[in-house]
Amino acid sequence: MPTPPPSSPAAAGTSDVEVETLTAVFQVQEMTADTDPVLCVLLGHDTDGPWTLPGGAVAADATLETSARRAVADSVAIANIAHLEQLAVFSDPHRLPGTRTIASTYLALVPSDVPTELPHASAWHPVDALPTLAFDHAEIVEAARHRLAAKLSYTNIAFALAPSRFPMSQLSEIYCAALGYAVDTTNLLRILSRRAVVVATGTVGKTGRSGGRPPALYAFADKQLRVTDEFATLRPPM
Amino acid sequence: MPTPPPSSPAAAGTSDVEVETLTAVFQVQEMTADTDPVLCVLLGHDTDGPWTLPGGAVAADATLETSARRAVADSVAIANIAHLEQLAVFSDPHRLPGTRTIASTYLALVPSDVPTELPHASAWHPVDALPTLAFDHAEIVEAARHRLAAKLSYTNIAFALAPSRFPMSQLSEIYCAALGYAVDTTNLLRILSRRAVVVATGTVGKTGRSGGRPPALYAFADKQLRVTDEFATLRPPM
Repeated sequence: MPTPPPSSPAAAGTSDVEVETLTAVFQVQEMTADTDPVLCVLLGHDTDGPWTLPGGAVAADATLETSARRAVADSVAIANIAHLEQLAVFSDPHRLPGTRTIASTYLALVPSDVPTELPHASAWHPVDALPTLAFDHAEIVEAARHRLAAKLSYTNIAFALAPSRFPMSQLSEIYCAALGYAVDTTNLLRILSRRAVVVATGTVGKTGRSGGRPPALYAFADKQLRVTDEFATLRPPM
Repeated sequence: MPTPPPSSPAAAGTSDVEVETLTAVFQVQEMTADTDPVLCVLLGHDTDGPWTLPGGAVAADATLETSARRAVADSVAIANIAHLEQLAVFSDPHRLPGTRTIASTYLALVPSDVPTELPHASAWHPVDALPTLAFDHAEIVEAARHRLAAKLSYTNIAFALAPSRFPMSQLSEIYCAALGYAVDTTNLLRILSRRAVVVATGTVGKTGRSGGRPPALYAFADKQLRVTDEFATLRPPM
């Protein structure tokens, strides 16, 4: 039988299954005034328990994505999530003890100029110095970081990490925090300009610590995710 | 409460949920000898019911991906699936009547030189001329096609649709079938060669219908998905 009868798609041999959402919410933050900014992830915890990603059971009246947004909203206002996308589903039969629980996971990004205060029992943690996390949550953070790094290379996803206007040196620091290695600011500006991913705003910012001329400020051309380098030959006819 | 207690991650207010997999299996096929090849999707059906994507309930002993592969294997041997990846999760509370069923969906690709025979009750259908599909299965086919088209533009994913060796005119037809519009064979070769996605094999194929010299045969350099155009500045240090 190649397919189940449409009237009972999950009838054959199903064991009890629960479905939860888990979201890795990232923000690039300056931990101290004189160190480079780092990629941080939002974690919560209850008394004495390990730290966990925000999430919970899928709501009876909502899709998984809406359930994920609601769970994050306990800590970060929905309006401050500049981008949210599905990551892989984690479905190892033994990922949790007890009833089998399948996790639909998400990546969410918060711009670096959004205030970082959180309610009690939540905190931002540098991704490179995580505390002990529950179950497979550390693996989910890793998958989210991997997806972010990949998309930085062929999309404009950095719009969701950057402030609304920025000197290129600051954007370079954001790429560096998210990728885990330094990028050359001049090359970054050249590529992102040529692809019309960032545009000059015609304004200048404050002079940096090292003095000199006030830096030109840039902004992302789009605030929606798009692939920034489709093959020229593969573009649909106009 | 920002996160559920780790010991009962899906405790609060869960209704009954079932989880199924559904996979859009694509192959580019020549429907007749004198028409261009088209993108086809694997469908099954029971007596009188609408057509469905291959799938079924998540197996108690397996991950969703393994469950998806097993469901496809009723029609197409696992070894003939050159690439399989997760698509979005479909979780509308009312996508199916009865018990809430969440679908974890997949895109699977079969090279065009794999024989196309199928067991009874399964058939390949051109994506542009689908019969009536059950529930949201047509929407899932559309999402799979959209993902495929996007990835053709920034990855080597066509390796999973192409035969092991091919003249560029044939690869161009495969791109055209998958994208829904014509691509220029010369430009395609130029870009895919420059990015080292396809390589010349040093062999030639049969002379085409229009006569002339036998065409050079090419092959994909990799048989694993990779992003083919990371920004040069974003590559990790060696």
